[in-house]
Amino acid sequence: MSAPSEGVVSALTGAILMAVKVCIVGCGALGSVITGHLARLSDIEVHAYDVFQEHMRAIRERGLKISGAADFTARLNATSDPSEIPPCDFGIFATKSIHTRAAVEQTAHIFGPSAAVCSVQNGLGNEEIIAERVRYVIRGATGLAIHMRGPGHAAVEFYGDIWIGPFEPSGTPFSLVQELAALMNRAGLRFVPLHDARGAQWTKLIFNSAANAVGALTRLHHGAAARFAPTAALYEALLQEGEAVARALGIVLSADPRELVAEGARAPTKRNASMLVDVLAERPTEVDFINGAIADYGEKLGVPVPLNRAVWQLLKGLEHSWSNPS
Amino acid sequence: MSAPSEGVVSALTGAILMAVKVCIVGCGALGSVITGHLARLSDIEVHAYDVFQEHMRAIRERGLKISGAADFTARLNATSDPSEIPPCDFGIFATKSIHTRAAVEQTAHIFGPSAAVCSVQNGLGNEEIIAERVRYVIRGATGLAIHMRGPGHAAVEFYGDIWIGPFEPSGTPFSLVQELAALMNRAGLRFVPLHDARGAQWTKLIFNSAANAVGALTRLHHGAAARFAPTAALYEALLQEGEAVARALGIVLSADPRELVAEGARAPTKRNASMLVDVLAERPTEVDFINGAIADYGEKLGVPVPLNRAVWQLLKGLEHSWSNPS
Repeated sequence: MSAPSEGVVSALTGAILMAVKVCIVGCGALGSVITGHLARLSDIEVHAYDVFQEHMRAIRERGLKISGAADFTARLNATSDPSEIPPCDFGIFATKSIHTRAAVEQTAHIFGPSAAVCSVQNGLGNEEIIAERVRYVIRGATGLAIHMRGPGHAAVEFYGDIWIGPFEPSGTPFSLVQELAALMNRAGLRFVPLHDARGAQWTKLIFNSAANAVGALTRLHHGAAARFAPTAALYEALLQEGEAVARALGIVLSADPRELVAEGARAPTKRNASMLVDVLAERPTEVDFINGAIADYGEKLGVPVPLNRAVWQLLKGLEHSWSNPS
Repeated sequence: MSAPSEGVVSALTGAILMAVKVCIVGCGALGSVITGHLARLSDIEVHAYDVFQEHMRAIRERGLKISGAADFTARLNATSDPSEIPPCDFGIFATKSIHTRAAVEQTAHIFGPSAAVCSVQNGLGNEEIIAERVRYVIRGATGLAIHMRGPGHAAVEFYGDIWIGPFEPSGTPFSLVQELAALMNRAGLRFVPLHDARGAQWTKLIFNSAANAVGALTRLHHGAAARFAPTAALYEALLQEGEAVARALGIVLSADPRELVAEGARAPTKRNASMLVDVLAERPTEVDFINGAIADYGEKLGVPVPLNRAVWQLLKGLEHSWSNPS
């Protein structure tokens, strides 16, 4: 099937409305869940883009299945060829951070001068990369717990908020942030538009700096790491470093990252941090965008960040080991 | 065969001499190499003790083979039953540090009030444990590169010095240290008797705090970790923490630990740190006796040791993961 590409007839007025077009760039677990929800809105034209061809083909042939806390299958356009995608009004970037630059290069032509692209990715620095090629950029941070089940199939463990706000250097109008949030919330997601989303982004970032790095290096699932005294103490020390860097930047956190630690630790299932999933698959991790970014900011500002720097060094070393160096 | 148990006839004087009896406790790679050399001296009665029965049986049946930089097979007494071992004049402790306490409990009866026991183990704290049950204790640190090839077979990559000196709290006479060194050097090893061996022990300890912890967490062999910029920087930061703790304790290092780093990195073969070998086999590591000991001293003395504490926390977490915690 193919979504409407020219317009739909308004049920209320009978007028021809141009469908809002949205392209989700990066259809891993998070991108797929957002895509699936959005595709249930009949007045939105949804395009999914990912280099993982088997996943795109499964979506084209059988639809995108969402299970877990939700249960439905959505039909939508899915491709690994960016030239097939028409100009879009909104973009949602949901790739791993390490793929942001390549994804922007492949898709920048889709986003014209009035389009806005929102990053819902982990870590810091994605918005800066997107803004090199896209006019209006929106920063975001997510609180969903999701995972892939296989090609064409993603699962939601629980819905959480997705906080979005203008990426300051791009001068994105807040009305665009509100429009995107309204559209996503109609689709059943929980987007929260904020004038300043940095506090939410840093709250998630600081949580990730502990949960992802410690999980990836110890191979403990999050609940076990949060409960085991030595790793719990390291979580706390990493959180304190990140909080000190945020303070030096004048960023007010939206919540205590310890709440995210505790919330995750209460999960009934063993939940591996995404960097641990990457380590077990011997794929490059997002450590540059998480602990590396905090360490870079801290060192620039003169805030001590020995632990974020050390776990960054260890994870770069672990990634290096997969190349079997001489 | 069985070594002489009562005495040997002096080739020079014809007098009956009581053979010096030595028990090596812990016959991994290092213990086996020391045992093999010592067993070549006809006037020394050598007993090897290890709980690894297959290794002890192989030594009893086929002798102990030493290859690599040496090449010989030695015959000697080897047992996993400490009740078979007669009272000995000297003991050499070469178990993993985590097994020191159990090994002392099993063998303390072998060492009478005039016997001296020398630790050639990694890390700090072994001498303290041995001294709880043995009158005279000698501290030691080794510079050999060795590894096991299989039951009954150990290999020497290169010979290095083994520095020994009195364990201060036990008031061990220096003459006992000299006697042990002379005996070992006759056997072809390079023991160096020192009035104060703490500087040598801490030099090795500080080297191990970097090479072992970084290797175990990144799975890089030592040369690769020493050459890769992020892990080389972490080596340097760990070395500096250990050096600061040694200074606060008034210990003068016997060498720059960076020389040990560089020496190991020049090895033509990929050499995994012993803690990495343990991690790959999912066996408990010696981290409590290396980074844990440095962190404990530093925290007691008010010397900042965040990195030794962090790698200790990560390795305890990694060990914890092997129990598949809920």
